[in-house]
Amino acid sequence: MGLKEFQFWLKKNKIDLALVLNSGHNKKDPNMFYLLQKEIDFGCIAVANKSKPLMFAPGFEYFKLKGQKLRGARVVQSKKSGLFANIKKKFPRVKRIGINFAVFSVAELKSLKKIFKKCKVVDIGKALLEIRAVKTKEETAKLKTSAKISQQIIQSCIENIRKFKSERQISDFLKAKAQAYGHELSFEPIVACGANGASPHHEPTNKKLKGFCVIDFGIKYRGYCSDITRTIYFGKPNLQEIKDYFLVLAAQKAAIEKIKIGRKCKEIMKVAEKALGKRKKFFIHGLGHGLGVEIHEQPNLKPDSNEKLQNNMIFTIEPGIYPNKYGIRIEDDVLIEKGEVVFLTKPAKSLLIVR
Amino acid sequence: MGLKEFQFWLKKNKIDLALVLNSGHNKKDPNMFYLLQKEIDFGCIAVANKSKPLMFAPGFEYFKLKGQKLRGARVVQSKKSGLFANIKKKFPRVKRIGINFAVFSVAELKSLKKIFKKCKVVDIGKALLEIRAVKTKEETAKLKTSAKISQQIIQSCIENIRKFKSERQISDFLKAKAQAYGHELSFEPIVACGANGASPHHEPTNKKLKGFCVIDFGIKYRGYCSDITRTIYFGKPNLQEIKDYFLVLAAQKAAIEKIKIGRKCKEIMKVAEKALGKRKKFFIHGLGHGLGVEIHEQPNLKPDSNEKLQNNMIFTIEPGIYPNKYGIRIEDDVLIEKGEVVFLTKPAKSLLIVR
Repeated sequence: MGLKEFQFWLKKNKIDLALVLNSGHNKKDPNMFYLLQKEIDFGCIAVANKSKPLMFAPGFEYFKLKGQKLRGARVVQSKKSGLFANIKKKFPRVKRIGINFAVFSVAELKSLKKIFKKCKVVDIGKALLEIRAVKTKEETAKLKTSAKISQQIIQSCIENIRKFKSERQISDFLKAKAQAYGHELSFEPIVACGANGASPHHEPTNKKLKGFCVIDFGIKYRGYCSDITRTIYFGKPNLQEIKDYFLVLAAQKAAIEKIKIGRKCKEIMKVAEKALGKRKKFFIHGLGHGLGVEIHEQPNLKPDSNEKLQNNMIFTIEPGIYPNKYGIRIEDDVLIEKGEVVFLTKPAKSLLIVR
Repeated sequence: MGLKEFQFWLKKNKIDLALVLNSGHNKKDPNMFYLLQKEIDFGCIAVANKSKPLMFAPGFEYFKLKGQKLRGARVVQSKKSGLFANIKKKFPRVKRIGINFAVFSVAELKSLKKIFKKCKVVDIGKALLEIRAVKTKEETAKLKTSAKISQQIIQSCIENIRKFKSERQISDFLKAKAQAYGHELSFEPIVACGANGASPHHEPTNKKLKGFCVIDFGIKYRGYCSDITRTIYFGKPNLQEIKDYFLVLAAQKAAIEKIKIGRKCKEIMKVAEKALGKRKKFFIHGLGHGLGVEIHEQPNLKPDSNEKLQNNMIFTIEPGIYPNKYGIRIEDDVLIEKGEVVFLTKPAKSLLIVR
């Protein structure tokens, strides 16, 4: 959604002014990037349902932003301390203000209310999450490229797999490749071998590569995230291990086949669980999540999720099982386009055993 | 401050329970790292003034944290959705709850109040900022190492300076060095040449190196930030440019000489401004800022800052001027120890001209 569509949406929802606020790299509203397609550290964009959107930015950020195109928004200099007073001067007559309750801090709301005393403040965060779940053409193109690059990097990692001695070396390779191509990471790579694999968000160590190794990686392309997981085997797997691997692969396939417009996310989750049979008890996380300007977006493919699948949603399908001694996870990114599943990553089909 | 001292502080301030909450890498409370000296993505630490501190962590994070030492805190598994209800079960009788108003979101406070209906919720954020301004011995040691590493990297960059063709190549060199040594950045390096230098937070481009080039860089060592700026000259400076450079250097020296326990920050700022004479109008930012788990902490050396300097404070001194055609900034990190200024970086003394 661009700023113009956002203004239209505000009008429809009877919100006079929306404020999206970033206060440093530790507290950023993903909707800022979503609306402007630009990384902002400090700044508050004020979007009224009629007039030109204004970006209020403090000294440093102002100098950085003033010459740039911000999808039609005009940049105004404003100290951090006097921010809301400056906004009030430009928008004196607003009555209903929309902010993102999930990011706006208690202190920021207090400051806001001191200035806009008689205004009603409402949440726009939840609605924007729903809007963001359905991707525009421009976003879909970026997400496709993002997934493609992540796949290439993980592929090149697998081609070099015999060179690596530890989880950390694999992780360093992935990070160096991303940096060499000029891409930020969507998240710190997860490389988890053997028993480490049993902790789905494990941090890479110097542990020697042995048994199943979960490699979970993704870059950002122009701000848009991708996320891919491959599990390979170092050494000689036993029969149970091989069985488990293909069970996870089958669960992924079954879930993907169940994807259909209008179907509830929890139903897709159920199919994957059913396919895992008795091993279901080791499936300890959700089946998937939306991808966008954040690595975890809507739709949530979780046991209690009543969200319905729609055209132009892009999300992961990543079943995994974590018996005590190892972890297996297989993750691919898919898009629903005209009712059909389109793969953004080329799904895993076999088990790679490295000896 | 460790968890024990924090408990003592809570007791003194009649706060029954403090909650420090991290909700993903986009919304982290720096006090979490400060108290635990550990990077946490998701989780809420609940510190009562008596009982053992508890870390409530959701599935993934729980598996990652449960085996780790968290300064004596015990890790408890908790879904994100039921977080405050779970906390309530463990601390049913609390009356006054302290949270950081600057980070806790409006939505999180709403959820908290739904569960702890009759509790008074107070801000502990501002008080913690003041506490964090004065460093412990352990923190000072980390900050010293952090500054030393940043200095070494920037030194090695300067030694290689003839190899670089653009701002971006310098920035890439700094980033690659930091990564090679295994250190995160405190912030994205700023490399700004010629007119780009006039924007203090400029992002590096492919611009050819010519005129003054501001290089502002810092790594994190065990979570603690450093920050150093050097300005070098490519080509043949004119007399005004040389004069300006040494003026900024003189302003830095004058400000450092004025550092004294009990003196207000704004007085140090004034000295630097005075030293700049007529060029003061081009000094468009604060003179310095505290360093710690955040890159910008207290004390703030700004025109309106009544904060008083104390022993064991660590902060930057970074005067700069930005006439239209170039920028010059010189930044070093200092500590006040037993009333004396200790340099954490070796201050710049001369102008480097590269031809």
